[in-house]
Amino acid sequence: MQKIGISEIENIATGAALLGAGGGGDPYVGKLLAIQAVRECGPVTLLDPDEIPDDALVVPMAMMGAPTVLCEKAVGSGEFGRIFDLDSQFFGKKIDAFMPIEAGGVNSMIPVAAAARMHLPMVDVDGMGRAFPELQMVTFTIGGVSATPMALTDEKGNSVIFNTITNKWTEELARSVTMSCGGSVSVSLYSMDGKTMKKYGVKGIVTRSRKLGEAIRKVKDVTDKTPEDNFLKFSEGIKLFKGKITDVLRETDGKFNFGRVVLDGIGTYKGQNAVVTFQNENLCAEVDGKIVATVPDLICLVDTETFLPVPTDVVKYGKRVMVVGLKCFPLWRSEEGIKLVGPRYFGIDTDYIPLEERVQEAKQNV
Amino acid sequence: MQKIGISEIENIATGAALLGAGGGGDPYVGKLLAIQAVRECGPVTLLDPDEIPDDALVVPMAMMGAPTVLCEKAVGSGEFGRIFDLDSQFFGKKIDAFMPIEAGGVNSMIPVAAAARMHLPMVDVDGMGRAFPELQMVTFTIGGVSATPMALTDEKGNSVIFNTITNKWTEELARSVTMSCGGSVSVSLYSMDGKTMKKYGVKGIVTRSRKLGEAIRKVKDVTDKTPEDNFLKFSEGIKLFKGKITDVLRETDGKFNFGRVVLDGIGTYKGQNAVVTFQNENLCAEVDGKIVATVPDLICLVDTETFLPVPTDVVKYGKRVMVVGLKCFPLWRSEEGIKLVGPRYFGIDTDYIPLEERVQEAKQNV
Repeated sequence: MQKIGISEIENIATGAALLGAGGGGDPYVGKLLAIQAVRECGPVTLLDPDEIPDDALVVPMAMMGAPTVLCEKAVGSGEFGRIFDLDSQFFGKKIDAFMPIEAGGVNSMIPVAAAARMHLPMVDVDGMGRAFPELQMVTFTIGGVSATPMALTDEKGNSVIFNTITNKWTEELARSVTMSCGGSVSVSLYSMDGKTMKKYGVKGIVTRSRKLGEAIRKVKDVTDKTPEDNFLKFSEGIKLFKGKITDVLRETDGKFNFGRVVLDGIGTYKGQNAVVTFQNENLCAEVDGKIVATVPDLICLVDTETFLPVPTDVVKYGKRVMVVGLKCFPLWRSEEGIKLVGPRYFGIDTDYIPLEERVQEAKQNV
Repeated sequence: MQKIGISEIENIATGAALLGAGGGGDPYVGKLLAIQAVRECGPVTLLDPDEIPDDALVVPMAMMGAPTVLCEKAVGSGEFGRIFDLDSQFFGKKIDAFMPIEAGGVNSMIPVAAAARMHLPMVDVDGMGRAFPELQMVTFTIGGVSATPMALTDEKGNSVIFNTITNKWTEELARSVTMSCGGSVSVSLYSMDGKTMKKYGVKGIVTRSRKLGEAIRKVKDVTDKTPEDNFLKFSEGIKLFKGKITDVLRETDGKFNFGRVVLDGIGTYKGQNAVVTFQNENLCAEVDGKIVATVPDLICLVDTETFLPVPTDVVKYGKRVMVVGLKCFPLWRSEEGIKLVGPRYFGIDTDYIPLEERVQEAKQNV
């Protein structure tokens, strides 16, 4: 059992934004929500998954919508209470604990705010170990868990409960309502018992986020190596590229932010160029036209000076970033995982090859 | 108390399609659904509103979607049971009776099918006395009744419950889900107690539909007047125009069918022309550029030979029709009624003037 107070929130938000792989929203917006809740209602108890009884009702809380909208249209005061009531009415029992569904600047923070305000504990687990754009893209889908009953509410007071035949249908219907509500809403989904959570969840993700955030803050407090080497060591990251952003193309269809970031190499990458494409999250990184990493592995952009994550909604011309690859949660590399969140699902015409193999191969070809 | 068997279904479908004022769907599709249900499960008991206790749970059942879609994508077998379960779970009590929400070829028939299959009675009342395109356009909105909890289900098995802050928001959110589900779904909405139903409902509408349908079938069984005069007498209709359809313009935005029907006068109307515009239902009729009727009054097109109603989804070049105006339910002529369903709401730049006054004025100007 750990406590999440204001300093933990700062670190979790930063670390989770790195694991958000470009998506998951702005950690600044996320942490403001959580800090306000903890200031008003006290720190949150973070429980290890194994502390949760098998029959407990564990409810992931999240915001749904495009990150750029999340930055402008935050959460009101009544959402958590409404979702608590909707789920409690549906299940005929009260929620025992909240959990995050994904790592990301905003969605790592929503359950902290919900737990603080509803005086409930939060579990150190999520369903991705990173962020993904679509609702069915969670380890629980592979475990056959239904996203529904899914409760959805907006800041105006509208609320909806979905029960769908597949998680893809939940995505379809909840996305429509999210768009009608102005592009971002609060949701609970994949409500499950403690046993299922322990079987399919990505355990320890909140603690990992906190440690990453802490390490990023202290990245320069080392003397035996460069801050960059230090960052790559504690994050277990693989350096893919380093460059200056020379172009950002963005589109939105109202549902997602699509786009690509073009980089001109700096330092040892001078003369080379790279392209990172995204759909809310970074999907694929290419260097000189050759793919060096794809989903489900994490492709993260970090500031070359501060090593703070640079989400897709704030990438801009002139910014110098390092492109870092992180290995995804092992279940994503299974056949079912690749089918759900592999490159081909996102329209990228390549088989999935693990990040470390692609990098190894690239080195041999040099 | 009356019974609705197969012959009653035929008449109700025809009469309700006339009151659908161009919308409400194809009575042929509607009646097939109801007949099948009554064949399999026996006739339906139709109760007078005053037979319903004040505390009974009365649930309007309907299809939501564009009429053209309704013709191709009908109702499956599980919808009524799912909606019954959703509402019963929500209210913590079982539904006592179904009712139609509008008059129309399809939506007059859905509650018959639901009542037959769920072995429940149906009430002789609705919330419009005609058909309207948008969900908030019911007398119950004027009475301050909430459209929600609204249960929605599709033929695939997806289901959703909405709770919204206004009936306009219900329309917005339910319409999005309807579109995502393929353009037509089954819904229950404006669930209410018997007392409210009796206070704001349009009483006797099912019986009126049945009598109209019966009279249309026997329209030529008179010797003292022409079939046309007979039709106008029993329908209490005002003849607005008679002509041949020379053009039909149709558009759909996925939510509604929009369009206009252009007519060249025949008989005493020779040399004149008329235009009828619609959004699912007919909204406005003009003769030689002068408005002769607008919503909320009913503008109905009927075949000049059979006097069967011609809904907007089957109007076509060459068809000869009579344009008939029927007075709307008195509550629609109140200030609140006009605000909700008057011509300006639909973007028609005119004040509402009652049908009979417009016609009187036109006669004086001749």
